Amino acid sequence: MISATDLAVALIRADSVTPARGAVFDVLEAALAPLGFVVDRFVVGEAPDGPVENLLAIRPGTGRHLAFAGHVDVVPAGEGWTGSPWSGDVRGGLLYGRGAVDMKGAVAAFVAAAARRPEAQLTLIVTGDEEGPATYGTLALIDRMAERGIAPDLCLVGEPTSARLLGDTIKIGRRGSVNIWIDVAGRQGHVAYPHLADNPVPRLVALLAEVEAIVLDAGNRWFQPSNIEITDLHVGNPATNVIPARAQGRLSIRFNDEHRGADLVARIRTLAEAHGATITARISGEAFLTPPGPLSAMVSAAIQAETGLTPELSTTGGTSDARFLSQLCPTVEFGLLNATMHQVDEAVAVADLDALTAIYADIIRRAGA
Amino acid sequence: MISATDLAVALIRADSVTPARGAVFDVLEAALAPLGFVVDRFVVGEAPDGPVENLLAIRPGTGRHLAFAGHVDVVPAGEGWTGSPWSGDVRGGLLYGRGAVDMKGAVAAFVAAAARRPEAQLTLIVTGDEEGPATYGTLALIDRMAERGIAPDLCLVGEPTSARLLGDTIKIGRRGSVNIWIDVAGRQGHVAYPHLADNPVPRLVALLAEVEAIVLDAGNRWFQPSNIEITDLHVGNPATNVIPARAQGRLSIRFNDEHRGADLVARIRTLAEAHGATITARISGEAFLTPPGPLSAMVSAAIQAETGLTPELSTTGGTSDARFLSQLCPTVEFGLLNATMHQVDEAVAVADLDALTAIYADIIRRAGA
Ligand SMILES: [Zn+2]
Ligand SMILES: [Zn+2]
Repeated sequence: MISATDLAVALIRADSVTPARGAVFDVLEAALAPLGFVVDRFVVGEAPDGPVENLLAIRPGTGRHLAFAGHVDVVPAGEGWTGSPWSGDVRGGLLYGRGAVDMKGAVAAFVAAAARRPEAQLTLIVTGDEEGPATYGTLALIDRMAERGIAPDLCLVGEPTSARLLGDTIKIGRRGSVNIWIDVAGRQGHVAYPHLADNPVPRLVALLAEVEAIVLDAGNRWFQPSNIEITDLHVGNPATNVIPARAQGRLSIRFNDEHRGADLVARIRTLAEAHGATITARISGEAFLTPPGPLSAMVSAAIQAETGLTPELSTTGGTSDARFLSQLCPTVEFGLLNATMHQVDEAVAVADLDALTAIYADIIRRAGA
Repeated sequence: MISATDLAVALIRADSVTPARGAVFDVLEAALAPLGFVVDRFVVGEAPDGPVENLLAIRPGTGRHLAFAGHVDVVPAGEGWTGSPWSGDVRGGLLYGRGAVDMKGAVAAFVAAAARRPEAQLTLIVTGDEEGPATYGTLALIDRMAERGIAPDLCLVGEPTSARLLGDTIKIGRRGSVNIWIDVAGRQGHVAYPHLADNPVPRLVALLAEVEAIVLDAGNRWFQPSNIEITDLHVGNPATNVIPARAQGRLSIRFNDEHRGADLVARIRTLAEAHGATITARISGEAFLTPPGPLSAMVSAAIQAETGLTPELSTTGGTSDARFLSQLCPTVEFGLLNATMHQVDEAVAVADLDALTAIYADIIRRAGA
């Protein structure tokens, strides 16, 4: 029987700072092949966002078709670790290493769970670029699945969703995200002769004051209220006696399922134009929700059977690749504790890896029932 | 008899990019000594704003004590001149050179005028640092005058006040100026978790919107309305998903004689504190006005006699050293055309130098009457 901890250690030891290619996929493929998975590895994309390696592993079997999605790339280790971020040391019941919780530990737990349920139909969707630009990551895997006619019934994303105790939180949706750059042009001049100039700053200030006054919604049963933050201002005028020619600002909007990114951009654009400002927008992702139903009930039941906890169904936090997978089939996210993700001394309890393996195995069992 | 043009050429040829020392004062002293002036040159101040050379030239005589104030330092030439900015070429009736109008030409015209009125009591107050920080310029000259008990009755500042025709404008006052730096501190965080952060930008925006709504006054008989410009904004946050910890802005207020700098600073500070912002202020100068009276009537009459023009009594434009001198005695400013000051190909008409000499000589005559 595969040990989730042993496999997690092997994955941590394999070079995989985003974008990951080669070694870490070799380790994963070597673990999957003996379990009956047909492994399809492919490299896509060009600089600057590529090339990226992805892995699609299919195992025929019985029951509903469950997909597990995740990534084996990691963020850089950074400075200040107690031990090595790449050696996979176990000390005091904790496995330390970059990727321990985000999310090599969860990938290892799912492989170990798949080994316990050899009859189950399963697909693993694993990218080497979730932490980077993600241009050629999960989206390329979804394209590959479409080409090959692979259509799962349910999808479980193994990102670290637990907050204080393993199993306390699963994500059933995420807010959408859009960034908007605001540019206000004016005419430069001397502060002593303001009538000869056109100061763009008051127009930017007036626009941003209107933006600040916007209440997008009050939140709803599953989402907190949508929120607009002004994240940057820039004029860059060193001269105290000069009226500047240009003023810029930037917004970040995190929005729930009552909005579409394009509608929000249009709304800000209308306001901006009224102040003679122009905008550029980039929608990072739309909001999505897999309303509570059979999948979340199944995951919750498996968690409760192992831990006794009733998980909270949450939609908080940043965006995740679940927003893409949710377009294929009902999708929820459940994984390890997120407290140390992207931090120095990232670590997972060995007991949590064992418990997560048991929960994933129970989810596979319930999906196949 | 001294020619204003010849002396202006000699002054232009002497090295005097701000702060000026040595050569240009040697030229001026050599012209003044034969006219009965006792010349007092002194160097004051230390780096970074010094050392600075200043000149005080006193000639005993009859009538009211008229002082003429000016500077012999110049701004750098910059690129793109048709000829040399330092050779004092005369082409087509124009004397070209850095300082031709601002204000070596006017200094030369006043010396030539003094030569025509050898009986008049006169003081020349000439600094080598008006275009620079001016920390050790006119203020040091005023200190020197106080030490020596020199108290003029009237003061004429020779800055280039004429706009389209020599004599069309004299300045009887100037607005005051204050710059204010605004700093709003918050708490950095991730845009997905705004409740854990404290975004300083909305507070800066709200404060600036209130500042923009301020109407300081409607102007008055001698002054245009006071004006507030927002001249800079800065956050400097490169990360689209980060709520910044700090936001900054900068104001420039040009104010008329209905306000004192300290009161304006206090007013902005009160607004700022209501938004959790702090401010730093630098008052560059208070507003001043020499209300129309004997001095402006005398200067106007001299201008009208020479040019036929009735000059406008103006208070527009930036600050000038007249704000300091006006604390000693009634002070007005009158000089050459300002169109080319600080520009490439700065130039003065030789005919204007002659006319200005005649006007200054007539002012000296009227002061002595
Ligand atoms: Zn992750
Ligand atoms: Zn000047």
